[in-house]
Amino acid sequence: MRRREFLAAPAALAAAPAVKALTFDVFGTVVDWRGSIIREGASFNKSRGLEVDWARLADRWRAGYGPAMNRVRTGELGWKKIDELHRMILDSLLDEFGLGKLDEAARRHLNFVWHRLDPWPDAVAGLARLKTKYTIAPLSNGNLSLLTNMAKRAGLPWDCILSAELARHYKPDPEAYLTACQLLDLPPGEVMMVAAHPNDLHAARRVGMRTGYVPRPLEFGPGVKRDAAPAGEFDVTARDFPALATALGC
Amino acid sequence: MRRREFLAAPAALAAAPAVKALTFDVFGTVVDWRGSIIREGASFNKSRGLEVDWARLADRWRAGYGPAMNRVRTGELGWKKIDELHRMILDSLLDEFGLGKLDEAARRHLNFVWHRLDPWPDAVAGLARLKTKYTIAPLSNGNLSLLTNMAKRAGLPWDCILSAELARHYKPDPEAYLTACQLLDLPPGEVMMVAAHPNDLHAARRVGMRTGYVPRPLEFGPGVKRDAAPAGEFDVTARDFPALATALGC
Repeated sequence: MRRREFLAAPAALAAAPAVKALTFDVFGTVVDWRGSIIREGASFNKSRGLEVDWARLADRWRAGYGPAMNRVRTGELGWKKIDELHRMILDSLLDEFGLGKLDEAARRHLNFVWHRLDPWPDAVAGLARLKTKYTIAPLSNGNLSLLTNMAKRAGLPWDCILSAELARHYKPDPEAYLTACQLLDLPPGEVMMVAAHPNDLHAARRVGMRTGYVPRPLEFGPGVKRDAAPAGEFDVTARDFPALATALGC
Repeated sequence: MRRREFLAAPAALAAAPAVKALTFDVFGTVVDWRGSIIREGASFNKSRGLEVDWARLADRWRAGYGPAMNRVRTGELGWKKIDELHRMILDSLLDEFGLGKLDEAARRHLNFVWHRLDPWPDAVAGLARLKTKYTIAPLSNGNLSLLTNMAKRAGLPWDCILSAELARHYKPDPEAYLTACQLLDLPPGEVMMVAAHPNDLHAARRVGMRTGYVPRPLEFGPGVKRDAAPAGEFDVTARDFPALATALGC
C-alpha cells in the first residue's frame, strides 16, 4: 500500500509546477517532543530524587497548547511566543506534579526543554539529502529563537528558519503559510508543506501549497492511535524523511 | 596599532553582559559584491561578445541603492524587497550600458547576481569558528530569500537568516536592529553587530547592541578610500573574521 503511494506521488507532482522549497512542521514531525521530555525528565527525577510522571506531564503540557493559542487567536491575550505559552501552561501544571516549589531559574530551564528536543532518528540524514535539491526550512509555531537553538543543538541543517512568529499568526491560520511563501519569494504551488498532522497539511493545501505527509505513529507514545490520512490524500506520503527524499528525487 | 585594538577589546567586553549572538552586515562585510559582479560580468561579456564595463555598472548599481531605499522610507513607494529595488535600479541603467535589449529572463537572471555573490576569502572559515561559540546570523537589507540563496550557494553556515525584511525597515532604521534582537529573544546588549561600515555600527550601538568592526578596504575596489573608524571606537576591531573569532575567544 505504501509502495503504491510512493509511485503515485511523483507522477501527480510532475504535472504541477516544480517544487523548489520544503517547509516542515517540527513538533512531532521532525522532533520527538514526548520522548525527549520523558528522557530529560528521567534525569531530572534522578538528580533531585523525584518521581514525577514525565509522560503524563508532557501530554498535559502539549494538550494545553491548542487552548493557549486560542486565547491569543480570540484576542484575550496579545501575541505570544510559544516559549511564553509553554511557560504559562507549565506554571499551571507544576503544583499538580509536585513541582510547585521550583524556583524561577529551574522553571525557565525546564520550559526551555522545548529547545532541546531530539530529532526522530531518520530526520537529520533525510534533511541532508533533501537539502541537496530543495531549500529546506521549518515552518513551526515554535518561535524563531526556539527553532534556531533546537537546530544548533540537534544539527538540523535548515537553509533558513521560518516560523509562525514571522506572521504573528499561528498555524493553521492561512497567514502563517502565506508569509512563509512570501519570504521564500515563491508562489505557494512551488512550496511543499511536510507534516505528520493532516490538519496542518489541509491548511497548507487551502492556500495552494503542495503537501507531504510523513506519519509519526509514535508521536503520542506506543500504542496511541492518531488521525490517519487516507492513502493518496496528499501529494506525497512517505514513512520517514529518507523515503521522502527518494520520493522527491533526491 | 591594530594589535593594540585586539588586546583591548576582550577586556572592554568583560565588564558587559556576555555576547550570545553575532549579527552580520552582508554586502561588503561578508561578501565581495563588486568583485563578484565584475567576475560574472566578464563571463557575460565573453558569452555574448560584449564589452560592458562591469566595474562601473556595479558601482552605479550600488550607488542607486541608498536613494532607492529612501523612496520607500519617505513613503513615495510601498515596502520593497531589495530584489525589487535592485531591479528598478538595473532597469534604469541598462540603456546607458548598451544592455537595453536584454529580455525579461536575462534581466531577472542578471538581477539575481546579488544572490550569487562570493564571500571574502576568510569569511566561511571565520564564521565556522564563530558558530562554535555564538549564534550567527546575517542582518542585512537583503531580503530573506536573497540571503538564503546566497548562503546555500556560498556555504555560509548561518544558524538562522535575519533580514531587515522581517522588520519592514531598512538599516540603519532602529527597527531593523531591534526586531532582530527580539527574534533572537536576546536583549540588544547580548548581540554584537559586525560590519565593515561605521554607520551601520553606530546605528546598532544606538539601540544598545555591541559592535564589531571588520574593515574591508577592497570593498569599493583597489585604492578607493573608505570612511575609516578611529581606533577603539567599537567594542572589537579585527582585520578579518578569523581574527574576530580569536578576539571573541573562539
